[in-house]
Amino acid sequence: MTTHEKIAALRTLMKERNLDAYLLPSGDAHASEYIAPYWKARPWFSGFTGSNGTVVITPTDVGLWTDGRYFIQAENQLQGSGIGLYKMEMPGVPKYREFLADKIPQGGKLGFDGRVVTVKDYRKICNALKDKAVTYAYNEDLIDLIWKDRPALPTEKAFEHELQFAGATAAEKLAAVREQMTKHDISAYLVTALDSIAWLANIRGRDISYTPVVYAYALITPDEAHLFISKDKIASFSTNLTAQGFTLHDYDKLTDYIKALPANGDLLFDPEKTNVLISDALPENIPVKKDLETDIITLLKAVKSPVELENTRNAYIKESVALVRLLKWLEEHPDISTLTEGDVARKITSLRQEQADFLEDGFTTIAAYMANAAQAHYSPGPVGSKLKPDGFLLVDTGGQYLDGTTDTTRTIVIGPISAEMKRNFTLVLKGHIAISQAVFPEGSSGVQLDSLARLALWEHGLDFRHGTGHGIGFCLGVHEGPQGISKRSKVALEPGMLLSNEPGFYKDGEYGIRTENIIAVEKRAETEYGVFFGFETLTYCPYDTAAIDVSLLTPAEIKYLNDYHAKTYEVLAPRLDEGEKEWLSNATQPLK
Amino acid sequence: MTTHEKIAALRTLMKERNLDAYLLPSGDAHASEYIAPYWKARPWFSGFTGSNGTVVITPTDVGLWTDGRYFIQAENQLQGSGIGLYKMEMPGVPKYREFLADKIPQGGKLGFDGRVVTVKDYRKICNALKDKAVTYAYNEDLIDLIWKDRPALPTEKAFEHELQFAGATAAEKLAAVREQMTKHDISAYLVTALDSIAWLANIRGRDISYTPVVYAYALITPDEAHLFISKDKIASFSTNLTAQGFTLHDYDKLTDYIKALPANGDLLFDPEKTNVLISDALPENIPVKKDLETDIITLLKAVKSPVELENTRNAYIKESVALVRLLKWLEEHPDISTLTEGDVARKITSLRQEQADFLEDGFTTIAAYMANAAQAHYSPGPVGSKLKPDGFLLVDTGGQYLDGTTDTTRTIVIGPISAEMKRNFTLVLKGHIAISQAVFPEGSSGVQLDSLARLALWEHGLDFRHGTGHGIGFCLGVHEGPQGISKRSKVALEPGMLLSNEPGFYKDGEYGIRTENIIAVEKRAETEYGVFFGFETLTYCPYDTAAIDVSLLTPAEIKYLNDYHAKTYEVLAPRLDEGEKEWLSNATQPLK
Repeated sequence: MTTHEKIAALRTLMKERNLDAYLLPSGDAHASEYIAPYWKARPWFSGFTGSNGTVVITPTDVGLWTDGRYFIQAENQLQGSGIGLYKMEMPGVPKYREFLADKIPQGGKLGFDGRVVTVKDYRKICNALKDKAVTYAYNEDLIDLIWKDRPALPTEKAFEHELQFAGATAAEKLAAVREQMTKHDISAYLVTALDSIAWLANIRGRDISYTPVVYAYALITPDEAHLFISKDKIASFSTNLTAQGFTLHDYDKLTDYIKALPANGDLLFDPEKTNVLISDALPENIPVKKDLETDIITLLKAVKSPVELENTRNAYIKESVALVRLLKWLEEHPDISTLTEGDVARKITSLRQEQADFLEDGFTTIAAYMANAAQAHYSPGPVGSKLKPDGFLLVDTGGQYLDGTTDTTRTIVIGPISAEMKRNFTLVLKGHIAISQAVFPEGSSGVQLDSLARLALWEHGLDFRHGTGHGIGFCLGVHEGPQGISKRSKVALEPGMLLSNEPGFYKDGEYGIRTENIIAVEKRAETEYGVFFGFETLTYCPYDTAAIDVSLLTPAEIKYLNDYHAKTYEVLAPRLDEGEKEWLSNATQPLK
Repeated sequence: MTTHEKIAALRTLMKERNLDAYLLPSGDAHASEYIAPYWKARPWFSGFTGSNGTVVITPTDVGLWTDGRYFIQAENQLQGSGIGLYKMEMPGVPKYREFLADKIPQGGKLGFDGRVVTVKDYRKICNALKDKAVTYAYNEDLIDLIWKDRPALPTEKAFEHELQFAGATAAEKLAAVREQMTKHDISAYLVTALDSIAWLANIRGRDISYTPVVYAYALITPDEAHLFISKDKIASFSTNLTAQGFTLHDYDKLTDYIKALPANGDLLFDPEKTNVLISDALPENIPVKKDLETDIITLLKAVKSPVELENTRNAYIKESVALVRLLKWLEEHPDISTLTEGDVARKITSLRQEQADFLEDGFTTIAAYMANAAQAHYSPGPVGSKLKPDGFLLVDTGGQYLDGTTDTTRTIVIGPISAEMKRNFTLVLKGHIAISQAVFPEGSSGVQLDSLARLALWEHGLDFRHGTGHGIGFCLGVHEGPQGISKRSKVALEPGMLLSNEPGFYKDGEYGIRTENIIAVEKRAETEYGVFFGFETLTYCPYDTAAIDVSLLTPAEIKYLNDYHAKTYEVLAPRLDEGEKEWLSNATQPLK
């Protein structure tokens, strides 16, 4: 079926249903970052495969909205499709909601699959269309009627995340959740985010690539805990779940169940992770709790327990061993020009597979040679560009282990680099060091630290257009909230929170630089002036000293690098063979 | 009249009026920072003279709420008064609104003088009492009935701020305001902040100590501009005002005038600067504009014009000459122990009086010896403590000149200091230098820079409990918004904005350190990565190098100090006599 045929078929269905516009966003029923193939209706319809895209179709117009990461890719993939590209945030480009408000007639009808529209987005749409007296047909999964070979919903078995990894039983986590419910006067808590449910019930699965979660819902009250999940997936350990306090229901029974929910008090759900069909099923007489800054489990799971932290430390040592082997393999490769970016990505996956308790990659490895790396979210695909013995190779990679989720970026010198490249690598490194060394009082949030990562670049009129750091899960999402390091990060950092520390620099058409470790917030001091926090670095992987202009570093920065390299050797050497140890010893020689 | 008698008299009046509680906040009818004596009802009633205080009185309770700056002073001044002290923001201490909500009976009546309660505070009070079905009697200035010798409202003559200083005519400013009104679709703009009116009409006055403003209101429409001001005060130049486009009314005619305002579209006023009686007088059918982030004139006047900037540069050179003379006088004083803090404050005022176009001090000089300086907002009063040839003297001082408002702090070594004092002085200086040297992209706000001023302190478990920087007026308030450098400062910095750069450190009972210059945001570079801003330092006054531990400074910090000192000598020398030049030359010798 061509895109033109799909558009025509969709318009026929719209006409039959008297729809004046149809909305086709990205995502699954849980607003997950990565989604199962069943949910890829928008990519299937439009041909555009980027993670963020929204299609709006009317009888006369069809457009796709995406963000700056994907402008080039979308232009290529939409070529000849008949779908117009709307570049989000560019001057003069309307938001898709504004486009809808402009195109839809007074009293018109907008259709969409309510499963893939979040309550938050729905509220924004309603607000944008508030003068149009629009009717919403939010039970219209029209793509399903056209998409003949649509993949089935996943049926992979789930498994228990054992106590040695999870560190707390599901019953203990339920108790912690209920303590917060009591504190905030919440009578029922509907959990829709898949990673929150996985954390709560200590279950993991394979429903989605890169994130070991299972499609499920949970509803927690002071006395009950209901888990809505395919019983086939959990058959082997369902008695353990009931022993922990869960009543089990089939995944598709949630809406029926909540329709009959008694109005005992405030109900909490996360409007960014809950879809319209669910909120629509809730009885109208139940008041919805709206004044919580962060969803309960989102915050609880962001603060890693001592057991989770200790496990994560171990996962990073294993990951670092794999990374060191990758770096050695690259450096000692007899002819790098026989390699592609895809080869590099496959190599790190295979090295990771040698490590204990490894599940799968945590995201598509970004192995990006020179100009490709200037696209911060570049993905090489199975082959990608060929490497040459010249310039920078950027590798951003990570894995899911039972004892942690990893994410590391190194920019490697694989041939001659210019003085400018060396300077800019060093400026990025100075920002990375500034974050790693920061000490800050309790109550500080990422917006107060973000500039530390950029100041050296700013002084040279340079910057990078992404946040400095994101939260990271524990054998869960590689990106998780609520904390972060960026100018939008207003959540107070707490000991046990994990963050990436990944400043970068991107020169269009030439090269990209990014240096990333994962860091954990830890308590450092308590004085009469406050409680002070700092960061523990969990990643042990040498920085490429061939890319450093030492003259730009302060003595304190040189000390950081030498200490980090000495510690890296000390931590990893016991796990390496003689040849690897020799390589690492050379790579971690102190700077003078 | 004792405070007990005042309380009894007030309760009698409350009873006559069936009031269940009476609210007595600080402030005048314009929410000014400094206020005329007529408005000091709360200090008169309570005996507490700090700038921030709210009294709540019920038939059985009477309490005063103030913030951490004033806990010690309030404890002393309320001693034996019968008024309980409520320490704001301390654990377990209710807000005064919560106290009211607790004490006032269902269906009760709360009285206050609506002139001194802002719309913003009134909204908060109504929200806190929303379950109590309270009646608000907001026209009850009961203190006026008790306060027999209440001072009159000020009657000082106002004067024109000439074009050579103001840089733009009032007509030009009205045009700029109307351009913003059009942009934001505003049909009428009620201006209530006194500094905004002074800026708009190019008038200055002497109604309030420290801020050269006149009690007035303005109402601007696309075609008209109404100024409500005592005609006596402006008699000598009223024709100039009408020539600029103003229609003149008496100050007390505002409410009558706005009662008859036609409903032509949205009306704008600043709820933080407008009192309840005014908002109550507005016709209900006029929609109030609420989605503006910053009041129009507040933002326009924060961005200084090239003429205002050039004038301010000149004011700071004059102020710096006075400061250098103060420092020389202190250093060369034959016996410092014969001096009090009050003598130091008077000396800087007299030195300032020698400078051209000086009006008055911009605030009470903080001359604070040792432990006194540990109170960040210490005021010595006319005498204050005696100095001793030992330790630190902190001087925070500034003046109102026709060509600018100044504000500088130096911490001076007047005797032996400990290694700890020297280290902490140097840590504060490192933060001060980091701010002065910061380069940052367009769109950045103070919250992103604040940590630069604190990082060196944080690394030692130290901090200071005030913002790093505030905006400053042009021959107007020493504190003005909307910009700032603090963790609450979210307004984007723009070229032409002035800020203080004043990190500090305070050791209770021992000493205080603060180092303050005024800086102006300026454009530095425009690259493919953005437009970058930096700061121009306007203050030229040596730092006391005797307090610097050079070993803690980086080469870049030493370079900053040497460049700053060299420039200070270069700028000031032409205005100094030989002896002063020699002193300054010594004080600005480069550090090695």
